[in-house]
Amino acid sequence: MLYFSMTEATVSTQAIINGTILTMDRQWTVHDRGMIIIEGDTISEIGPYCPDRLETLRIPLDTCIDARGGIVIPGLVNTHTHIGMSLFRSLADDRPNRLLEVIFPLERSQVNPKLVHIASLHSLAEMIGGGTTCFADMYYHAKETALAARQSGIRGIVGQAVASKGGPDAKDFPEAVQLVGNLQELLQDDRLLAPAIAPHAPYSLSESELEYCAAFSETHNMAILSHLAEMPFEESYVQEHYGVRPIAFYDRCGLLGPRSTMAHCIFASPDECKLLIDTHTGIAHNPSANSKSGKGIAPAHALYQAGARIGLGTDGPMSGNTMDMIHQLGITAKMQKVLLKDPTVMTPRQVLRCATIGGAEALHLERITGSIEIGKRADIVVVGTDSPAMFPVYDPYAALVYSACPTDVMLTMVDGKVLMRDRELMTIDARSIRKEAQGIVDSIRARFSHLWES
Amino acid sequence: MLYFSMTEATVSTQAIINGTILTMDRQWTVHDRGMIIIEGDTISEIGPYCPDRLETLRIPLDTCIDARGGIVIPGLVNTHTHIGMSLFRSLADDRPNRLLEVIFPLERSQVNPKLVHIASLHSLAEMIGGGTTCFADMYYHAKETALAARQSGIRGIVGQAVASKGGPDAKDFPEAVQLVGNLQELLQDDRLLAPAIAPHAPYSLSESELEYCAAFSETHNMAILSHLAEMPFEESYVQEHYGVRPIAFYDRCGLLGPRSTMAHCIFASPDECKLLIDTHTGIAHNPSANSKSGKGIAPAHALYQAGARIGLGTDGPMSGNTMDMIHQLGITAKMQKVLLKDPTVMTPRQVLRCATIGGAEALHLERITGSIEIGKRADIVVVGTDSPAMFPVYDPYAALVYSACPTDVMLTMVDGKVLMRDRELMTIDARSIRKEAQGIVDSIRARFSHLWES
Repeated sequence: MLYFSMTEATVSTQAIINGTILTMDRQWTVHDRGMIIIEGDTISEIGPYCPDRLETLRIPLDTCIDARGGIVIPGLVNTHTHIGMSLFRSLADDRPNRLLEVIFPLERSQVNPKLVHIASLHSLAEMIGGGTTCFADMYYHAKETALAARQSGIRGIVGQAVASKGGPDAKDFPEAVQLVGNLQELLQDDRLLAPAIAPHAPYSLSESELEYCAAFSETHNMAILSHLAEMPFEESYVQEHYGVRPIAFYDRCGLLGPRSTMAHCIFASPDECKLLIDTHTGIAHNPSANSKSGKGIAPAHALYQAGARIGLGTDGPMSGNTMDMIHQLGITAKMQKVLLKDPTVMTPRQVLRCATIGGAEALHLERITGSIEIGKRADIVVVGTDSPAMFPVYDPYAALVYSACPTDVMLTMVDGKVLMRDRELMTIDARSIRKEAQGIVDSIRARFSHLWES
Repeated sequence: MLYFSMTEATVSTQAIINGTILTMDRQWTVHDRGMIIIEGDTISEIGPYCPDRLETLRIPLDTCIDARGGIVIPGLVNTHTHIGMSLFRSLADDRPNRLLEVIFPLERSQVNPKLVHIASLHSLAEMIGGGTTCFADMYYHAKETALAARQSGIRGIVGQAVASKGGPDAKDFPEAVQLVGNLQELLQDDRLLAPAIAPHAPYSLSESELEYCAAFSETHNMAILSHLAEMPFEESYVQEHYGVRPIAFYDRCGLLGPRSTMAHCIFASPDECKLLIDTHTGIAHNPSANSKSGKGIAPAHALYQAGARIGLGTDGPMSGNTMDMIHQLGITAKMQKVLLKDPTVMTPRQVLRCATIGGAEALHLERITGSIEIGKRADIVVVGTDSPAMFPVYDPYAALVYSACPTDVMLTMVDGKVLMRDRELMTIDARSIRKEAQGIVDSIRARFSHLWES
């Protein structure tokens, strides 16, 4: 018994020492050679490295996580993705009208619980390996994504997609809503995962169905995830059917507000930006996916400056092709700078804010995660500086935003639990997942190769 | 004696087997499970994997480079960089007027042969590790860059920067031209490296000096590297002083032509694009650096479609922050798609063309390198697909352009010689270079921290 209680005591208090800590708190506090003490799932102390304090706390030096040379940041928050789609990656990229002519038919015929489960685990391996500690997902068979996420130990909001015509997992809207109920039941006592109702987009549900989603969210105090102001045809469709623009339409349906996160918001006028901000709606900015699809880039700098709850997202692996949040950093900065013709906008600090505490705000989880502050959950990432592009580091924010790769991430911790260390995943057997995925991929290749071979 | 001659025979014939070979020849030939035979420095056969043929050639299977699961491509060509600047990386990023207020003063006080040599080796470790087999560089103390490049085994064009005011290595233009002569002498019998005269830009040399550079290039049959149509102030400066726009001005000076590679060409009108194409001038497109600095993006799609000699470049590590050509692939596509609002422009195939044979054309080296074809030098790269973002691969071009990271590169071969295999560099001791670099970095940090700390 003594042995077990000692073990428990050792495990429950941890320290990360020696790295350069970018806390991302309101004062932009940085500790050059810092120390973070973690009690269970929670950050209890932050400051300069202090061996005496470790001794007082009875934390043996050899149990500390030594982040020497590394940059310690809050875990990255991926505010918008569809992780169940990873087995479709690189399929028919860049085809015109790809959503309607490729993705929707492919999903109808191929998406099933097994595919979503395996694809989700494969995606989680990528996300955790690349320093993502919290994600927001919306897709079909969301229960499978939730189960995969639970296995992985990541934090997140798992949304069940709903649409008028249902989807591969539901024949119609009421059946899809039933799946939201099932998801809610599955996650009711989950420490890390929360359910969301995820109406697909303004053009794929009726006004009354969208109002129903808003009411459902209010009744169940449940998150809402959706796509908004993303598609070039969306504006004319909504204008024609409802006499307003998409963002105003969603407001009218009750879908904007302090439980909502809207992905994209590319076509947002200054007034519409104000509406998103005034309603405390979270915004998921996806510059890599939105540029690849040629749609455009949301006014991220303006939103940031105006105090929006704006985070970054990878979008799904058919859209952005990776679920690598590190890659989002550079492209977020570069797209704003080139579009506004101003190198001083969207600085590395601002970009890293969007990727961490900004993402937490966009998901309305900022009291729990997104910064390294006392009382917050220990969602922490260490980025190494051994690779050539990460030397020298005069400015750690710039190094992260302009030089880092996902393989530079050396530690991913969620809720005080190490999920990846020294490029080794602790909760997912990526190799066996991939083996299982290969069979599915081979059958998709055999059946759909006409879609991408020219 | 028998032992040595056997060893030589074994070394002189090599095979790369099993990978998916994207030859990047004119027919876009792909071999799904291919085989490349290399005799000495030259590609002698390409086709499907054939064990019988290996036996006929007496190449034991266990000496073959097994690229199973990997994508085999021509080595990447970095058409514009300043590798001697890597020890300034992440210093004072995003400051307004950074070139004149930060970079030039920093260079005057800090750039010396030792710094350029060490910085070049550090950069070469990054480039070779990331699959670059050929580069074009322009900087001060170019002799040091050439010596570092020679040690590394990379192919390239090494340019000595010249300007009216000289630079950290020359008090004036004539002294800088003298350094070009020294460089030429150093490289006269080099198998892999060629010298270039590198007039800095239209605004930093007089018309007669620029004409001198053109004549020098013609007399010595030497490459010309320069910056052109890059800076927002350049156009009005050249217009005011010479009554024409920058590209026409360079043409008037004799600087465009079949020995020239012009970096950037951001501000190129359709007529100016035609002039670049008609004169067979190579173009180095640097979308990552050009967007980071908020300058703009060259009309790469239009240039490509019109048949320009257009390659990709990283620019120097103070501009683009990495010398990672893999990163250029995605951003090249995404910038054109978002600016032209069309997802079908700049396809992954076209982007990979720019990064390989297009880059070779931009450097006028297309008869030697840039594609996997019989008779060309064996400059070959294998990109692995083990990382999560590289699975599945329905389309290998899309996987490379939208998903790959530099750490996915598993083999870099130049001129038939393996420079990196399984992430291990063969010709550069990156750790000891970095140790030496640390002292220089510490002194820069101590002296210049006011430039980036706010």
